[in-house]
Amino acid sequence: MSWPPIRPELAGIEPYGAPQLDVPVQLNVNENPYGPSAECIADIAAAAAQAAATLNRYPDREFTALRSALAAYLSRDSGAAPVTPDMVWAANGSNEVMLHLLQAFGGPGRTVLSFAPTYSMYPEYARDTHTEWVAGSREEDFSLDVDKARALVEEVRPSVVLLPSPNNPTGTALRPEAVGALCEAVGDHGIVVVDEAYGEFRRTGVPSALESLADHRSLVVTRTMSKAFAGAGLRLGYLAAHPAITDAIRVVRLPYHLSAVTQAVALAALEHAPELLGKVDELRAERDRVVDWLRTRGHEVAESDANYVLFGRFADRHAVWQGLLDRGVLIREVGPDGWLRVSIGTPDEMTAFKNALVEVTA
Amino acid sequence: MSWPPIRPELAGIEPYGAPQLDVPVQLNVNENPYGPSAECIADIAAAAAQAAATLNRYPDREFTALRSALAAYLSRDSGAAPVTPDMVWAANGSNEVMLHLLQAFGGPGRTVLSFAPTYSMYPEYARDTHTEWVAGSREEDFSLDVDKARALVEEVRPSVVLLPSPNNPTGTALRPEAVGALCEAVGDHGIVVVDEAYGEFRRTGVPSALESLADHRSLVVTRTMSKAFAGAGLRLGYLAAHPAITDAIRVVRLPYHLSAVTQAVALAALEHAPELLGKVDELRAERDRVVDWLRTRGHEVAESDANYVLFGRFADRHAVWQGLLDRGVLIREVGPDGWLRVSIGTPDEMTAFKNALVEVTA
Repeated sequence: MSWPPIRPELAGIEPYGAPQLDVPVQLNVNENPYGPSAECIADIAAAAAQAAATLNRYPDREFTALRSALAAYLSRDSGAAPVTPDMVWAANGSNEVMLHLLQAFGGPGRTVLSFAPTYSMYPEYARDTHTEWVAGSREEDFSLDVDKARALVEEVRPSVVLLPSPNNPTGTALRPEAVGALCEAVGDHGIVVVDEAYGEFRRTGVPSALESLADHRSLVVTRTMSKAFAGAGLRLGYLAAHPAITDAIRVVRLPYHLSAVTQAVALAALEHAPELLGKVDELRAERDRVVDWLRTRGHEVAESDANYVLFGRFADRHAVWQGLLDRGVLIREVGPDGWLRVSIGTPDEMTAFKNALVEVTA
Repeated sequence: MSWPPIRPELAGIEPYGAPQLDVPVQLNVNENPYGPSAECIADIAAAAAQAAATLNRYPDREFTALRSALAAYLSRDSGAAPVTPDMVWAANGSNEVMLHLLQAFGGPGRTVLSFAPTYSMYPEYARDTHTEWVAGSREEDFSLDVDKARALVEEVRPSVVLLPSPNNPTGTALRPEAVGALCEAVGDHGIVVVDEAYGEFRRTGVPSALESLADHRSLVVTRTMSKAFAGAGLRLGYLAAHPAITDAIRVVRLPYHLSAVTQAVALAALEHAPELLGKVDELRAERDRVVDWLRTRGHEVAESDANYVLFGRFADRHAVWQGLLDRGVLIREVGPDGWLRVSIGTPDEMTAFKNALVEVTA
């Protein structure tokens, strides 16, 4: 027997994560390039000091104030029916939110269904919760064929359907009719999770699945403060769903999973939503310019509703990735063979990317 | 089928957690009654501000600086062999550390063994990771009979043995010979986790299991900043073990599980270790005084190496608990029938507890 006695299916597996390289232009993990303003930093420090004054006490297990603030924020996108605090759940990053969902609704003997190519962490959540992983496939343009997806749901009978919108790494938003169709196909036997980690970057006219919450009690919409809120270092993911679903998650969450400091800092950052969302508009415009430029250069580019762009195709994508890295620009070698993903940074960073790409593909 | 479609074994379960009541004297969840000093709060705020300046970036996945600081701190208790950073793991609270351990070394088809009465979260960690839970029993005085425990290990062949020292809720430290005996019984087939969440409160002459790390590669010693470091609101648990064990945990951890703010604040708090550990000595002395007083009053009291005391026995412990609560003193109704647990607070808080108990038991 090999040692240490790790579970056999985990033996020899490399931990998930993009390479952490120290490079001038970091466009590999879809971070927001704009840090918080001086005012926001000062408010975060004040919030941390206030939390620190009673740091010897356990935090509010129900993160009441943060839940209310997140509910108010989500209600901007939910149409006529507001999101109420009892519909909100939060955890240390979207990935802990997903873990909670699969612990409560997946697990041994149950199946989670998604559609490839998609986010490479999804099968890890399934593995870590002993949920069977089934991946259907997307179309040539990375969109979801709703009829085929519905047929697969009826065949597989998943307990959880994972639908990122926009999809990672392709940037593809769900068609508006997909959410309702798949919620109906799943019925009361499972939940449909629309992962809107990058939802705030969607193009004008593309709806959020939050608008459908009132119509489908099996629907769960997840978000994160990592991207639009420029809070990747904060690790705050959250969701909106029927209160009975958030209540079910409370059974599997570890008590006091959100620290007093995390709750306080997230609240302080949420109060700067207008400032942070202003940067989102700049990033959306920059994204559209990068898409146009890549097409002008003859590249194939996936439609993007995210703060990243998948482009190709390259006979040797690793050589292109390496060439960019050699020029100080780190992007991500991910997705279907031949494609590369670049995050949207500042205009200066995108100029560096474009110049490097011209050189590498010359 | 009932809705929502939560896993059947979770349906109807109440989420774990002591009642969150607003009471003047809170002696129910073993918090440290002493908040951080003004200097420590200022350092925490400065650390949070520094982390906030780059909050748009993901945190260091390997929490390198924090790992080194925790290793240095643990090396005070590890005897001749220092704890090195590659022996350290940390997560959002000891409970996430335990989850990681059971995800990597427990799981379906595997068993975790502990000895009752013990910490009521342990079976929940087992349930949440689909690990079979087996509980042997402690002696009348809540100590562990090492020969019987070894025989049970040989019979059950657990993948994980969970040994709190001091035990919660009884306060009982492990006998020094237990660690080596059970590590040998488990051999290379499992790990032995000594949960020293309250380890800093042990009485003079009681060793830490950290001293045995160099002799037993199956040994894992867990700690927390919640208690001795007065950081319950921070949620920072950690462990020391063979580097191959910490490496195995990295496969199941969610990427970026420790936020940049958590890492920075924990580092700032660790720099105030001398101040915080000074309060630990005061609490140990107060604990010993409370034990003596309770015995003088004719109560049965379990030996305590923790910052709490289990005492009894009461024909109707709930009535005593309620009587104390009616007098503004919240303690915990937990452990074997007839016993109650009180956390060690400030001298004033313990006076309030004693006065209320005299009234209630008059």
